[in-house]
Order: sequence, then structure tokens, then C-alpha cells
Amino acid sequence: MSQNPPPSDRSRVRRIADRGRYDRETIHAIVDAAYLCHVAFADEHGVLCIPTACWREGDHLYIHGSNGSRMLKALTTQGACVTITHLDGLVLARSAFHHSMNYRSVVVHGCFEVVPAEHKAEAMNRFMDHIAIGRRHEARPGDANELAATTLLRIPLAEASAKIRTGGPKDDADDMQRELWAGVLPLAMVGGQPQSDGVERRAPDYVRHWAGSKVKAAQAETA
Amino acid sequence: MSQNPPPSDRSRVRRIADRGRYDRETIHAIVDAAYLCHVAFADEHGVLCIPTACWREGDHLYIHGSNGSRMLKALTTQGACVTITHLDGLVLARSAFHHSMNYRSVVVHGCFEVVPAEHKAEAMNRFMDHIAIGRRHEARPGDANELAATTLLRIPLAEASAKIRTGGPKDDADDMQRELWAGVLPLAMVGGQPQSDGVERRAPDYVRHWAGSKVKAAQAETA
Repeated sequence: MSQNPPPSDRSRVRRIADRGRYDRETIHAIVDAAYLCHVAFADEHGVLCIPTACWREGDHLYIHGSNGSRMLKALTTQGACVTITHLDGLVLARSAFHHSMNYRSVVVHGCFEVVPAEHKAEAMNRFMDHIAIGRRHEARPGDANELAATTLLRIPLAEASAKIRTGGPKDDADDMQRELWAGVLPLAMVGGQPQSDGVERRAPDYVRHWAGSKVKAAQAETA
Repeated sequence: MSQNPPPSDRSRVRRIADRGRYDRETIHAIVDAAYLCHVAFADEHGVLCIPTACWREGDHLYIHGSNGSRMLKALTTQGACVTITHLDGLVLARSAFHHSMNYRSVVVHGCFEVVPAEHKAEAMNRFMDHIAIGRRHEARPGDANELAATTLLRIPLAEASAKIRTGGPKDDADDMQRELWAGVLPLAMVGGQPQSDGVERRAPDYVRHWAGSKVKAAQAETA
């Protein structure tokens, strides 16, 4: 287990600090396992928390949307906090108090910047690879108008922290003889049966292998 | 489909407004399907977005934590925004541009209030019921010290909006003859094989039926 220090004071995990991790490999693995993040920022009404699709390229997390998006406009003028959370299981303890959840989360502080026009097409290809490897060679690529109508933002992963809980319940010694089952009920995102939109076409491998697969299931290294 | 209006201007869904829903049934169903929410608030460093366990009782969303939690302290002094998101599928279109995701989300604006001491035990029972029906009759209940060490907050669901996308891709007519599969790759949270912590005890029904089950799968009414 690497013992990188927190990159900033506000990135330091305070509550149950030994669950905090600050190494790049851990943070990248948690980001790469996500299709969406929650972005917190402020507008004239106060704070907002908005879910949006995301992907990683190098040391940045990317989001995108329509040029008209009020969120994207707001994010270019202020700092933001971006959070990704994977729920990995319910932890059933012998006492109500010690029930818990297993999870992997990443919290990023920083400022979004606009991705320059000349990098947009390549960045959108990375997004397509994140959704389904190979699909960008099959689908019609974005044309000039579609790319022009899309704003891409990215935030550095430099000021990020991960927080991870794994393992079973931590019961009080006095409760260990109680007559109830204790342990973990694991949770995972699993693919369901693909639903064609009605036009018959050969399904590529990433569609044929979807049902029953654990999606983006690579667990963060926690040893 | 009920056509309730947004409860406030800041609750109105703006981006793709026809995905917005404001009726209580829809909002409650999305909240009830969640084990965790993301809470946005501000501290001296700026905005923060923190994941935490949640449950519903009546028209409030509840969260809890240690009395020492900085988040819980901060939330009693300011407005917050709480967001729940369920990712239901990847939408594969014939053009890169029209790829999308199916989801159900709820965004709540408002102020948290401290749950009075005399209601804490009952509210924690509701939380246990949310995790596993029946378990609160098996596990040791919280004692006076454990309850006293726990802060419960709740926020009204009065100022909330839901946003839902369902269904297949919406391709351009010009792309419909392309030779690639298009449709939805569904996603769901599915239970894995329960992991006992090593002490042999009879597994209750909610443990024995966990593996392979779609967890909290009740879909929001979208007709």
C-alpha cells in the first residue's frame, strides 16, 4: 500500500482517516470504474449537486454537455468539487450501531477548464472507448456542427483523495456470541439483457457479452 | 403521468425539461431505491460533495453520522443540495453524438434539521428496515451511548425534482440505415454471494435470497 500524503489540506480524509488513499493508481482505478460523477458548484441560489457522465484521460477527469448548459458555463467561473462513489456492499453487524457499507469513493477539488477545440474530437473518442471499446470505429463520428455544439470541460486529478472501506463488520467483543448472521452482502453493477431498438443488426462482442457481466468491475487495489 | 409543477424556480429541470418530474410518487420511488446520496454544501474552502447513506421516512430524507462529523455540523448552518442518481443503462446510438444514458435522479434543495433525541431510535429502526427488513429484530439495538454519539439530520423532500431518461437511442433519420447495432445496454445493482464473517449462524431470508437479486430494483413509474 502506497502511503502518499494528501495533496492539500482540504483533500485530507478526516472522518475515519485510515480509509484515505492518495496515490494515483487508486484514484485512477476508482475514476475509471465510473460512468458518472456528481459535480458540486454554486449559483445564485446556493450550492448545486448535478450528476453527469465522466471519463478520464491521463491526469484529468472530463465531462461534456451542450454549449447551452448552465452548469458548464458556471463551472468555468468557479471552483468545483467532483465526487465518484461505488457502493460495493452492505455490512451487516451484530449490533445496529456497527452496520456499515463497503465503498470506493474519490473526491476531487479544483477548477474546470474548457478543452480546446482542436482536442475535442480526440477526447470524445476517449469517451466512446470508455462506454464500449471499438464502438467509435462503428458509429458515425461527430461532424463539425455536433462537435461545435458540444462543450468539453476537464478538471485535474491533482487535488484528489480516495476513501475506501472493505471487509466485514467490526463488532464489539460482547456481541460476538449473538445468534445472528453477520457479514457482507456484496453489490455490483451488472449488465442486463441488451435491448435492440428494433433494427436487426449483428451485435458486436461488447453487446453479446454484456448480460450478466460485472460492469467496470475492476476493484481498486486495497492491499 | 402526473403533471405536477416544479415546487420552486430552482427546482425546475432546465436541460431537456421534458425529462423533469415533480410528483411525490416518482420522487419517493427514486429515493427509496437508493442506499446513498451525494450532499453538496460549502465550507471555508469552497463547495464540497460528500457521499453518505440515506433513507426516507414520510416526506423527509434522513442521513446520519458521528457527532464529530464536520459535514453534519456544517449542514445545520446552511442550505444544501442532495442528489440521488441511479444509472439504468448505456444508450448506444448510430452516431457518436446521440449516445446517451438511461437514469433516474432526484435533486433536493433545502435545509437539514437535527432529528430530536426522542425520535432517533425510531428513525434508526427505519434505516435498518431500509437495509434489511427484519434485521432490527435480530441485531442488538443501539444503546443510550451509541444513540447519543450519533447525529441524525433530515431534509424535507418538498423542494425536489426528478429527472428520468428511459428508452432507446434517438438517432437522426439519415443514420438509420447504418450497419451497426443500436439499443440499450441495461445496468442494475445486483447482489453478490453473501460473505459470512466466519461465525457460523443460520442465514436469514434476506441473506439467502441476496445473490443474483436486483437490489432495490423497483423502477420509478415512468408511463
